Amino acid sequence: MGAQFPRILPDHSVAFRIKAPEAKSVDVDITGKKFAMTKDSGGVWNVTTPHLVEGFHYYALDVDGVRVNDPGSHAFFGTGKDASGIEVPEDGVDYYLPEEVPHGDVRIRIYHSKITGQWRRCFVYTPPDYDSNPTARYPVLYLQHGMGEDETGWIFQGHANLILDNLIAEKKAVPMIIVMDSGYASRPAGPFSPASTGPDFTAFQDVMIKEVIPMIDSTLRTVPDRDHRAMAGLSMGANQALQIATHNLDTFAYMAGFSGTMNGLSTDPIDRDTAFGGVFKDGAAFNQRVKLLWLGMGTEEPKPFPGAIGAFRAMLEKAGVKYVFFSSPGTSHEWLTWRRDLNDFAPRLFK
Amino acid sequence: MGAQFPRILPDHSVAFRIKAPEAKSVDVDITGKKFAMTKDSGGVWNVTTPHLVEGFHYYALDVDGVRVNDPGSHAFFGTGKDASGIEVPEDGVDYYLPEEVPHGDVRIRIYHSKITGQWRRCFVYTPPDYDSNPTARYPVLYLQHGMGEDETGWIFQGHANLILDNLIAEKKAVPMIIVMDSGYASRPAGPFSPASTGPDFTAFQDVMIKEVIPMIDSTLRTVPDRDHRAMAGLSMGANQALQIATHNLDTFAYMAGFSGTMNGLSTDPIDRDTAFGGVFKDGAAFNQRVKLLWLGMGTEEPKPFPGAIGAFRAMLEKAGVKYVFFSSPGTSHEWLTWRRDLNDFAPRLFK
Repeated sequence: MGAQFPRILPDHSVAFRIKAPEAKSVDVDITGKKFAMTKDSGGVWNVTTPHLVEGFHYYALDVDGVRVNDPGSHAFFGTGKDASGIEVPEDGVDYYLPEEVPHGDVRIRIYHSKITGQWRRCFVYTPPDYDSNPTARYPVLYLQHGMGEDETGWIFQGHANLILDNLIAEKKAVPMIIVMDSGYASRPAGPFSPASTGPDFTAFQDVMIKEVIPMIDSTLRTVPDRDHRAMAGLSMGANQALQIATHNLDTFAYMAGFSGTMNGLSTDPIDRDTAFGGVFKDGAAFNQRVKLLWLGMGTEEPKPFPGAIGAFRAMLEKAGVKYVFFSSPGTSHEWLTWRRDLNDFAPRLFK
Repeated sequence: MGAQFPRILPDHSVAFRIKAPEAKSVDVDITGKKFAMTKDSGGVWNVTTPHLVEGFHYYALDVDGVRVNDPGSHAFFGTGKDASGIEVPEDGVDYYLPEEVPHGDVRIRIYHSKITGQWRRCFVYTPPDYDSNPTARYPVLYLQHGMGEDETGWIFQGHANLILDNLIAEKKAVPMIIVMDSGYASRPAGPFSPASTGPDFTAFQDVMIKEVIPMIDSTLRTVPDRDHRAMAGLSMGANQALQIATHNLDTFAYMAGFSGTMNGLSTDPIDRDTAFGGVFKDGAAFNQRVKLLWLGMGTEEPKPFPGAIGAFRAMLEKAGVKYVFFSSPGTSHEWLTWRRDLNDFAPRLFK
């Protein structure tokens, strides 16, 4: 709507502004740092940050100790609530931007879950030729967000639709449907169970296996078999995706963890024979059954991610489980990593 | 995500809470009133309002003079930015709530506009049987938001999809596609032109007639003729819808203004012979050509709406133009009025 601030300058510094004549102090909290704003004679607070690292950043303003969203920017659902977000562009990078290629639609779909007793919502990407090619059937990637995010994250922050539009236009990926559900689910009387490793991790898995997949297969033109179904996710969603996929090999033949694995935040060594119900005990059998196990992370991810993912990889290697590992140079636990992950993973699917 | 506040109490008073230990004053600004919050010893500010009028309300918190969103609630695009919103339920009213009926999808679609030189986005509702009935073709309602809102408003605030799901399930309305575009458009070098009566009101009309409608007709299973096309809008969008529809009678046979008409905010008498390019000069010819002209407003709308809409109606009556007038009891210039409008208007379409 023509807001002048926040404004990204050519050197990727960012100018923030907010009118707050009566405030005593205002900071911008972005990329893990706080930048103090200064008030002019009109009661308007300003700061221009130094160069900010490229990518999508959640941020907040701190007004007299109250953490608030910036009225000048759009909100994205992250950190458990609607949070301000800003995109510092990567010069010369366009694989996640809208290009003059055919575009798929992203459908907002509501459904009633008997398992949770609530109305839920998923986002569904259909590829560009879905409507013009009315007898074609498509494989499906189930793609999960991270902690504190929801079913909107992969579209509004991740640009999954644009990444696939571009890959499909270049014939690097086959046309596919992508289903993005909320990873949060709890049974009506039960505790809230976001973590996939806890004792209550069954509600989301049940929603996915018993409700979402049958709904998608019965209402969209899918190829409803394991060879045409993948599940992936980021961080908490990586844990969920790998737990669900490895325990439902009749349903999924492809799987990926972006900046996350089945051991969650633990860096402890993993016993291949007993961990995760023994799914990796027989590496050769796993390799024969699973068409692709894909893992990725950014080179700059903080603790405990390198250690936790490292422990999982060590277990896989000991078990002789084949997997692809993708390393995103210079990026952390953030959407730039996960966009690159999807851009590498999606072309390997359903071929 | 389980936020406890804001909390709507059984008597429709609302409890707000925010932690702000260092703030000097915090108010809640809702339904045109400010409610002062009081700070407890832990630095948490609280207020419980009296009973609030039913319906959807934008609101804000005022922290030491800075207008901010409530971290505890979802944001909706309104008032020109992401704004906090809350829904005070209408007891016993369910026509805009999700029910156990078949649901249509809402598609997020991006497209490049040659007219504006920019990427734009529209939301498209497809009715529940769109995917299961692959040879059926559908009529289309083009439905516009109001000033400061965007293409998301009719879904997230208006619940247009749920209203149609329910009407279609009850066989009160025929299955139809609804296209919701942004009413804001400007040519690359031109001024921003939101108002539909100004000299620059051509960019949005051109986007609608030359880009959106051809795109929809070429990619979805529509019946691409005037008898199966309607245009409606609310407030600023009413002005746009009626301007566009009356000046493109080869394209539209149905039209509606919700809380708005072609004379905008003017309450001056209107000359039927010369106003609006003379489209109402020959009332009999208009009646023969137009299948439905529908107007509606709430009984509690503030000035200038009653006067402006009244002046438009007086002109129509003088010209002998037939129209339906719907009055929403007890509601103002707000989403409750517009939901009721759609619920009355949609069943009259395409029959």
